[in-house]
Amino acid sequence: MGPGMIQQEFLDVKTLGICRIASPMAAMLEQRAPSLHYVDETDGVLFDSTLSALRVRQAEGVDPPTFEPAGPRKKIFFDPSKTRAGIVTCGGLCPGINDVIRGLTLTLNYGYGVSKVFGFCHGYRGFTAKHGHPVLELTPKNVSAINEKGGTMLGTSRGSEDSNEIADCLERMSINMLFVIGGDGTIRAAIELNEVLAERGLKIAVVGIPKTIDNDIMYIEQSFGFQTAFSEATRSIRNAHAEAKASPNGVGLVKLMGRHSGFIACYASLAGNDANFVLIPEVPFQLDGPQGFLSSLRKRIVERQHAVVVVAEGAGQDLMEGASGRDASGNKKLHDVGSFLKQRIHEYCQAEGTELNLKYFDPSYDIRSVPANAYDSVYSNRLAHSAVHAAMSGRTEMVVGRWNSRFVHVPMRLAIRERYCVDPNGDLWMSVLEATGQSLQYC
Amino acid sequence: MGPGMIQQEFLDVKTLGICRIASPMAAMLEQRAPSLHYVDETDGVLFDSTLSALRVRQAEGVDPPTFEPAGPRKKIFFDPSKTRAGIVTCGGLCPGINDVIRGLTLTLNYGYGVSKVFGFCHGYRGFTAKHGHPVLELTPKNVSAINEKGGTMLGTSRGSEDSNEIADCLERMSINMLFVIGGDGTIRAAIELNEVLAERGLKIAVVGIPKTIDNDIMYIEQSFGFQTAFSEATRSIRNAHAEAKASPNGVGLVKLMGRHSGFIACYASLAGNDANFVLIPEVPFQLDGPQGFLSSLRKRIVERQHAVVVVAEGAGQDLMEGASGRDASGNKKLHDVGSFLKQRIHEYCQAEGTELNLKYFDPSYDIRSVPANAYDSVYSNRLAHSAVHAAMSGRTEMVVGRWNSRFVHVPMRLAIRERYCVDPNGDLWMSVLEATGQSLQYC
Amino acid sequence: MGPGMIQQEFLDVKTLGICRIASPMAAMLEQRAPSLHYVDETDGVLFDSTLSALRVRQAEGVDPPTFEPAGPRKKIFFDPSKTRAGIVTCGGLCPGINDVIRGLTLTLNYGYGVSKVFGFCHGYRGFTAKHGHPVLELTPKNVSAINEKGGTMLGTSRGSEDSNEIADCLERMSINMLFVIGGDGTIRAAIELNEVLAERGLKIAVVGIPKTIDNDIMYIEQSFGFQTAFSEATRSIRNAHAEAKASPNGVGLVKLMGRHSGFIACYASLAGNDANFVLIPEVPFQLDGPQGFLSSLRKRIVERQHAVVVVAEGAGQDLMEGASGRDASGNKKLHDVGSFLKQRIHEYCQAEGTELNLKYFDPSYDIRSVPANAYDSVYSNRLAHSAVHAAMSGRTEMVVGRWNSRFVHVPMRLAIRERYCVDPNGDLWMSVLEATGQSLQYC
Amino acid sequence: MGPGMIQQEFLDVKTLGICRIASPMAAMLEQRAPSLHYVDETDGVLFDSTLSALRVRQAEGVDPPTFEPAGPRKKIFFDPSKTRAGIVTCGGLCPGINDVIRGLTLTLNYGYGVSKVFGFCHGYRGFTAKHGHPVLELTPKNVSAINEKGGTMLGTSRGSEDSNEIADCLERMSINMLFVIGGDGTIRAAIELNEVLAERGLKIAVVGIPKTIDNDIMYIEQSFGFQTAFSEATRSIRNAHAEAKASPNGVGLVKLMGRHSGFIACYASLAGNDANFVLIPEVPFQLDGPQGFLSSLRKRIVERQHAVVVVAEGAGQDLMEGASGRDASGNKKLHDVGSFLKQRIHEYCQAEGTELNLKYFDPSYDIRSVPANAYDSVYSNRLAHSAVHAAMSGRTEMVVGRWNSRFVHVPMRLAIRERYCVDPNGDLWMSVLEATGQSLQYC
Repeated sequence: MGPGMIQQEFLDVKTLGICRIASPMAAMLEQRAPSLHYVDETDGVLFDSTLSALRVRQAEGVDPPTFEPAGPRKKIFFDPSKTRAGIVTCGGLCPGINDVIRGLTLTLNYGYGVSKVFGFCHGYRGFTAKHGHPVLELTPKNVSAINEKGGTMLGTSRGSEDSNEIADCLERMSINMLFVIGGDGTIRAAIELNEVLAERGLKIAVVGIPKTIDNDIMYIEQSFGFQTAFSEATRSIRNAHAEAKASPNGVGLVKLMGRHSGFIACYASLAGNDANFVLIPEVPFQLDGPQGFLSSLRKRIVERQHAVVVVAEGAGQDLMEGASGRDASGNKKLHDVGSFLKQRIHEYCQAEGTELNLKYFDPSYDIRSVPANAYDSVYSNRLAHSAVHAAMSGRTEMVVGRWNSRFVHVPMRLAIRERYCVDPNGDLWMSVLEATGQSLQYC
Repeated sequence: MGPGMIQQEFLDVKTLGICRIASPMAAMLEQRAPSLHYVDETDGVLFDSTLSALRVRQAEGVDPPTFEPAGPRKKIFFDPSKTRAGIVTCGGLCPGINDVIRGLTLTLNYGYGVSKVFGFCHGYRGFTAKHGHPVLELTPKNVSAINEKGGTMLGTSRGSEDSNEIADCLERMSINMLFVIGGDGTIRAAIELNEVLAERGLKIAVVGIPKTIDNDIMYIEQSFGFQTAFSEATRSIRNAHAEAKASPNGVGLVKLMGRHSGFIACYASLAGNDANFVLIPEVPFQLDGPQGFLSSLRKRIVERQHAVVVVAEGAGQDLMEGASGRDASGNKKLHDVGSFLKQRIHEYCQAEGTELNLKYFDPSYDIRSVPANAYDSVYSNRLAHSAVHAAMSGRTEMVVGRWNSRFVHVPMRLAIRERYCVDPNGDLWMSVLEATGQSLQYC
Repeated sequence: MGPGMIQQEFLDVKTLGICRIASPMAAMLEQRAPSLHYVDETDGVLFDSTLSALRVRQAEGVDPPTFEPAGPRKKIFFDPSKTRAGIVTCGGLCPGINDVIRGLTLTLNYGYGVSKVFGFCHGYRGFTAKHGHPVLELTPKNVSAINEKGGTMLGTSRGSEDSNEIADCLERMSINMLFVIGGDGTIRAAIELNEVLAERGLKIAVVGIPKTIDNDIMYIEQSFGFQTAFSEATRSIRNAHAEAKASPNGVGLVKLMGRHSGFIACYASLAGNDANFVLIPEVPFQLDGPQGFLSSLRKRIVERQHAVVVVAEGAGQDLMEGASGRDASGNKKLHDVGSFLKQRIHEYCQAEGTELNLKYFDPSYDIRSVPANAYDSVYSNRLAHSAVHAAMSGRTEMVVGRWNSRFVHVPMRLAIRERYCVDPNGDLWMSVLEATGQSLQYC
Repeated sequence: MGPGMIQQEFLDVKTLGICRIASPMAAMLEQRAPSLHYVDETDGVLFDSTLSALRVRQAEGVDPPTFEPAGPRKKIFFDPSKTRAGIVTCGGLCPGINDVIRGLTLTLNYGYGVSKVFGFCHGYRGFTAKHGHPVLELTPKNVSAINEKGGTMLGTSRGSEDSNEIADCLERMSINMLFVIGGDGTIRAAIELNEVLAERGLKIAVVGIPKTIDNDIMYIEQSFGFQTAFSEATRSIRNAHAEAKASPNGVGLVKLMGRHSGFIACYASLAGNDANFVLIPEVPFQLDGPQGFLSSLRKRIVERQHAVVVVAEGAGQDLMEGASGRDASGNKKLHDVGSFLKQRIHEYCQAEGTELNLKYFDPSYDIRSVPANAYDSVYSNRLAHSAVHAAMSGRTEMVVGRWNSRFVHVPMRLAIRERYCVDPNGDLWMSVLEATGQSLQYC
């Protein structure tokens, strides 16, 4: 897809019906005037904010495609006094999940007067009888301090459950809106669920808040928890540097998250001064040969007596042999590039007769399980607010996003159509190359 | 100014002349294809990315106004081998200044091969003989770790100096480009300087990196250091809450930065759960009367036995009498709203016979002097990169900005034309009202 | 008192009676053998562990004085199944109070099976009807996470209440043991209370855990929360240095806690590199004259263009005029040495024609309200364990202490007989003089 | 060795000769009077500060054994103007090494006027020509900020070098005193070195500062860096808890440092609320059987659906088969108990049909490479001061220690004679058992 080449139909959000009920926020909304920082509910946020994209559309004689802006509506679809909401959290941990749960619960209660909010436990398992997890009632009181803890108060799990069973549960509990906090696998399952709900004629809004510690989902600019995550990763890189400097021919090898997208590796490396090599999934590299990674690394060791290598877990998968299978979420299992590199670096240095003192860092769980920092707390909160406004107005099969610095509604199918990756030709990677001084040739 | 109502001429950036020199980065740039994350140098970034703004322009039959995108150019104006750059930091401290200095120095050296980089000390004073400050030569080595320290390695000062003397100094030292890190007063002085330079026919690029801990400069979305600042502020609010809860009828009163814009107060309050009243310059409030602040505060104290009040330093200025003068930067001196509220709360509670245990927090200097957090480090760095690219391509009288999530060039006159404020009708303030539960009536 | 010159009677701890009940911990204790790290309950911990002190006693033909070691006893005084315990927290905040409350509650429950634990709110006020504070029942569940918060879950207040009323309350509620967390004023009130209890023939153990953020209570080595406090103070000194370096002739003036003892000022200054002058109550100094503080400070400003001054709140009280009264705890109110110095430095520099950019830091409440760090958490916990063991064995009118690296029992009257101060001739102050390079002459 | 059973000869420190030179600190020392916090240089610090130990000695008619107190002497052995000092750091990283280097350099320079201070790089390798490491000259300027970094500015290595070669180097460079920062292997090598020096009749003081992140060296109470280390470890335990709670039947398994002594595991577990099982080298445990660890763990998983296990690296070595060899420092290589437990837990749960979601944490390098916290900074500094005073007064073959809360001189042979371990019958382990609630039976 070239920029601006998308059609409007991919950006249009499904709704459950016409909004006829006056929002409790209507009075406040009357006072608001459109400004550079407030988009009216009848307006649209351009998909591509460049002049060139605009000209393409003008040549075609059509309006440029736009996202629907997020935010409260004057009229809403659900009657707050009769609304029952559900929340579920799926997949791996990420800083900020508890902030989202809290933000949803408080806005439903205080913003709309919806007091029946249910938390389903351990992901989609929470809807099916066979796992026997309890359903929690969420109140402003029991969520008030959860944001001070990492993890998720609802628990999580990987993988999905039968959509019909989930629909049965929602129907049985008279849930009107389901908030799904998860990544692309979770969103895919939510689309299936929504199809079942539609077939049954159930007016249940399914709204997602995209969760991805790798920052690899499109149209969300930066996913919640990402800043906290790369801040923590920065610590390990700093520590790897201290270890590398301390030993003769010391190497600090840091494996970070990033299955398909190397954002954490790039940002964490840019935040300090310490990384000398950054390897990400988007930029293939050679191990061997005179311009290969091993030779370049050894050259630096010999010249500078130490080096720090940062590798995203999805990097260099083509260099490792054999099938790896899939995990419960349906994600392809990755080869362990950290252990692989560790071994290959050892072998290479031994063969070359170069002393090596390598220290291996794998801080993954120590990163994703921490509480959100101040920025991610605020951001998670505001995503939650947008999700509640969307659901109350009857939007469904969509996730909240952030585009051109505005909160927007993104259809689920669009959100998972392609992945957000580090552009090997873009500014970010160029900054990494400059900061590390790593050569381009082996890439 | 309504959204989209601006004319293109206000967004056009001045240049020193035609770019005829091949950039050292040209090879890398050839490979780059425009994408949703990369804007070509010939393209424009829309000033207003809403459909409604676009329609207004279409009705007028004109192109919508655009910012020039930031980034490296294939051809540049200055010959790197002969280029001499200057850097100056002005005004109050802000996390990230050292990251900007470091980013400028490294990109000039490694990106373009410009090795003559000079640091002028203590703001504009550094250019004038009478203050006798030394000029520092900045090298990749002596800036390599400065980002680990708060403050600015160059020192700073408030106020400006005679533009002719500054121009003399630049001419004498054969400086080709000056990077100015400062707020609106600093930018105003830079415009004056640029006029003198233009009159003298000197081809010196003057490029700014907007510094404002209050986040009150337009077209930069979030100013560097802002996230670090409100994170620190969040600590004081949390501590004020611990103190307030501990004493019978305890009140924690926290004065935060924010002369004209209450962003720090709003974000810091949203990041935790602890603030009950947030007072900002943009939203006037009454002290007295049954719906006034004092009565509302006392009501909460009586009902809940504790309260936390967050006040931005510029709030409630209309409530205090007398002239206050101006500081060396030409900013109007503010009345001390913290001490004022402290006294008035005491008086009011005494008059009402209500016990009061008030603890006053004024963490200002403890906030602005810390090193940048990981995000602000990366962001400061990338702003610095954009500034170098702009200067090398002969842009002048401009600051780097960030708009619609893209780095852009913003004319200095536009950047200071109006202030970025919290919109009392916007999402942010609505979130604050929701989070605190503070009543609207006294506002 | 010279070292070792104390008499044993001052170290002897009061008991409520003979211990006849087998402790639930008896089985575990049977296995324990005395070692360098375990002192048997029948043993004593030397008051003075030097050879010279020993020789003095040998010359006198008496045993050297010893503290009773803390720890569980094989036989205890109270029957756990019938025991009801009370906890009260008094005076200013200090990191670790919640850890102590939690440690007491958990050890009473899990160590002894005492499930009736009551928390009295807002200090001694919590015992008297007129204040109407509720009494909380403390359980392992409701204290389980309180250590993650600063402050005290029970609230606190300054000042005491009528000892007879307190005794009435304890009698009415059938409390057998009262744990008092507070400073010297609190301990003084506890002695009075104990006298009333003794007169009434009530077998109620009154055991204290000394709380003093200033670290000024004897026989506790380092008071709980002290390490957390000076760590936080170190941040402000670092920040003051960043501010001082940034401005021409910048001075960072940091007022820290320390009414009578300058420990926080000394330790916080030693932890970094940034303080140039440290002023503490124990070391008088002159302001004026050629060797005075003002002249020394100005000399440094002129030579180095910046300086950092750390002043404990009780320093230089003799330099300020007028009476200052007493606070509710009976402590003499201090003159505000921070504001005083700020003004005098300004005046002096103005008179001398020296430019001055002074930034004033007063982080007091931001220091004492934070949660305990890891060390203080463990230490607070272990103090609480010792306090429970002491109370269960019928000890009373005592506080837990730490002496010669061992937990010991200290009679309340001894604990408040003299203050723990920085010895102007000792190692600590010598280290400060060396680290700052401040001259001795003006002191 | 029973408490107090040691003979004085083991505590006596070797000296190079009579002190005839007036110390630059003599004037300051004249003013000092012995107090509870200052021990005169002619005094002694009791080895055992209990009354029972004293009685044993009295019965024997001998003085109780004492350590020589540390601190400056009025007369010193070396002439400062002619003194040349060396510093070397050996073994694994530990927070605070840079503080020690800095403290040594500053005290030598400012306290005694010794300006020739040399840093030998990468441990004992730094003395031998074959490794070719440069010798650094250390000055107050180049050490001034090193304490802000983790690691060691001198680099380190494991293993020793030929004592004669080291002695050659010291002789060649006319070094008068060598400061050795390292653990038991390093101290052992220093003893050998000292023998060679003595044979050659070289008057070179060899003084150690014990470094052990495991806190397993006797007579130092707490080794420098230990508090920082267990604080960091506390973070991983907290994170493991977040992960464990999030997954159905989640287990967080955290491997921490502790080859022979489980102090880090114990303290880190006590600082939070999160560990359910703590396994240390000092307390053997069974894996299998109805009371074994695996069964106990599974029981908790089934009952509570989550568990956190903390294991010191040296725990359970008897449970793993095969030889493991020795590392370059001569330490026995340990079997990897973390991976072993991970596998056995998986196998056991699979065999029992219990779902298991285990997350493994191995934060070792992320712990030992961080900068010292405020307390450890001060403490490292004061140890360095004591070491300099000792060396200047001609003490040799000794390390600085801390005993009965006083800095003392400890002969190297004594320091390594036995290890400091967690006493399974002592207070610390009892607190751990209470805090975790782990049953005793499987131990």
